[in-house]
Amino acid sequence: MRQSNEENSERFAESSRGLLSVVGIGPGHDDLIAPKALEAIAAADLVVGYSTYIKLVKHLLKDKDIVRTGMTEEIGRARAAIDEARKGRKVTVISSGDAGVYGMLSLIFQVLQEDGWTRDANPELRIVPGISAINSCASLVGAPLGHDFCAISLSDLLTPWPSIRKKIDRAADADFIIGLYNPASGRRQRQIVEAQEIIAKYRPGTTPVAIVKSAYRKQQSAVVSDLDNFLDYEIGMNTTVIVGSNQTIVYDGFMVTPRGYTNKYTWDGEVLEGQQPARSLNLDALPVREES
Amino acid sequence: MRQSNEENSERFAESSRGLLSVVGIGPGHDDLIAPKALEAIAAADLVVGYSTYIKLVKHLLKDKDIVRTGMTEEIGRARAAIDEARKGRKVTVISSGDAGVYGMLSLIFQVLQEDGWTRDANPELRIVPGISAINSCASLVGAPLGHDFCAISLSDLLTPWPSIRKKIDRAADADFIIGLYNPASGRRQRQIVEAQEIIAKYRPGTTPVAIVKSAYRKQQSAVVSDLDNFLDYEIGMNTTVIVGSNQTIVYDGFMVTPRGYTNKYTWDGEVLEGQQPARSLNLDALPVREES
Repeated sequence: MRQSNEENSERFAESSRGLLSVVGIGPGHDDLIAPKALEAIAAADLVVGYSTYIKLVKHLLKDKDIVRTGMTEEIGRARAAIDEARKGRKVTVISSGDAGVYGMLSLIFQVLQEDGWTRDANPELRIVPGISAINSCASLVGAPLGHDFCAISLSDLLTPWPSIRKKIDRAADADFIIGLYNPASGRRQRQIVEAQEIIAKYRPGTTPVAIVKSAYRKQQSAVVSDLDNFLDYEIGMNTTVIVGSNQTIVYDGFMVTPRGYTNKYTWDGEVLEGQQPARSLNLDALPVREES
Repeated sequence: MRQSNEENSERFAESSRGLLSVVGIGPGHDDLIAPKALEAIAAADLVVGYSTYIKLVKHLLKDKDIVRTGMTEEIGRARAAIDEARKGRKVTVISSGDAGVYGMLSLIFQVLQEDGWTRDANPELRIVPGISAINSCASLVGAPLGHDFCAISLSDLLTPWPSIRKKIDRAADADFIIGLYNPASGRRQRQIVEAQEIIAKYRPGTTPVAIVKSAYRKQQSAVVSDLDNFLDYEIGMNTTVIVGSNQTIVYDGFMVTPRGYTNKYTWDGEVLEGQQPARSLNLDALPVREES
């Protein structure tokens, strides 16, 4: 499959078929919603979303029809959006963060497939990426994502817990920075405790951990703690937890994961002996350090 | 460390100290740059960035001083930005995607630390998150990031190859969707081949793989291939590769990773026997499937 760049510059108001747009609104703050997502909302006849997200952008939804439903009603929401768009309406589905990351987009594809829809059929489908929670949360505590990272949802409502546990284990072993989405809820408290135990098998208790709640929203809080102590903080539905790698440091309250410049350069930008700027790191010339 | 939400609403023009803003411009297309990033650029006296990224937003930089440098000159760029901001100027450093993900942000923290800077000192530091490449590339091929994913840079210029190899291995074993940043360059061709070999130990050759080049830029191309065949496509500096998990499907040319709704629901939204909507998945009531 190839897509031309022209597709990206099509205006939302111009669709001749019914139009189903699926957009990420980032953390929900107007300053961090992409212009293209704002345009998709402005052009919509109907906006569909989880009630919390609808509330975040309600000032943008005057004169719009709205379908808002609660958690665990995602399939109904996807169906409503598709059915209304098929009638020829302009429907915009909003997810917080990026709609493709634990959002509505994947489910919408599944329901479309169930319906036998294809890309040239009605409705037309458009996707607008957004700033995912791991990125917005990271920006409030420094630069924790400075090297390889992963995102794991601790929700076992749809995913078997053993496969989540395995992901945590392998990610911890390979020294990924680990972003934990949906770490806990009113009913689900056990998973984050078990996640901590698994990670602690591979990383010291001093490993930096960020607990970010409601990033860029009214109830925002951002705390940098460590692996031994972060469970003392309130962790709930609106919290994202970022566990540093073995390289992550805390500096003046900021959590920072270095990219690795000190493996090759001095802070004056001089290349260290035995290394070359645009070549693979020469392992034989590395300063003495533990094996990774 | 706690930050209040008020901090987020400060205007960039209002800083009394020198101001160092580090912003992600997403894929670089105006439609996908957050308003807050645009504001940070508009308020700047000096804009600093890798020449390719400066070019992407050059129409926003009229009357701005510009420091643009090439690859492998990141330390010099960070130093220039910090030194100029310390003089009292408004300096905005731009990275493509999210500045915290393989971008300039982590390096800037390291140079600031080297200088003995603290958060109340001059310059003031502000961070604006952006849409990371994995998200913008995913949006062009469907919903590949519908479940747990990781990002791995295949560049071994600063990171020892054995530790990158271990990350690929553990991520493949745990069935993460794998986003490969910096998969290859003119000189570096070996890593993506080795990555393919490692992943193929754990996943069938039919596993969907997306090859996305220059997302939302003029040279954009997006192809969905599979693990056996994706190396036949051109993979270079501006390519991001997304390898699906064992759950990922291709449907009408779209790459989609299901979240897991069929574990609990019918497509009419009815709860399957033995399951409860807001409770952990009951593993004893799952339809027969391979263990994960």
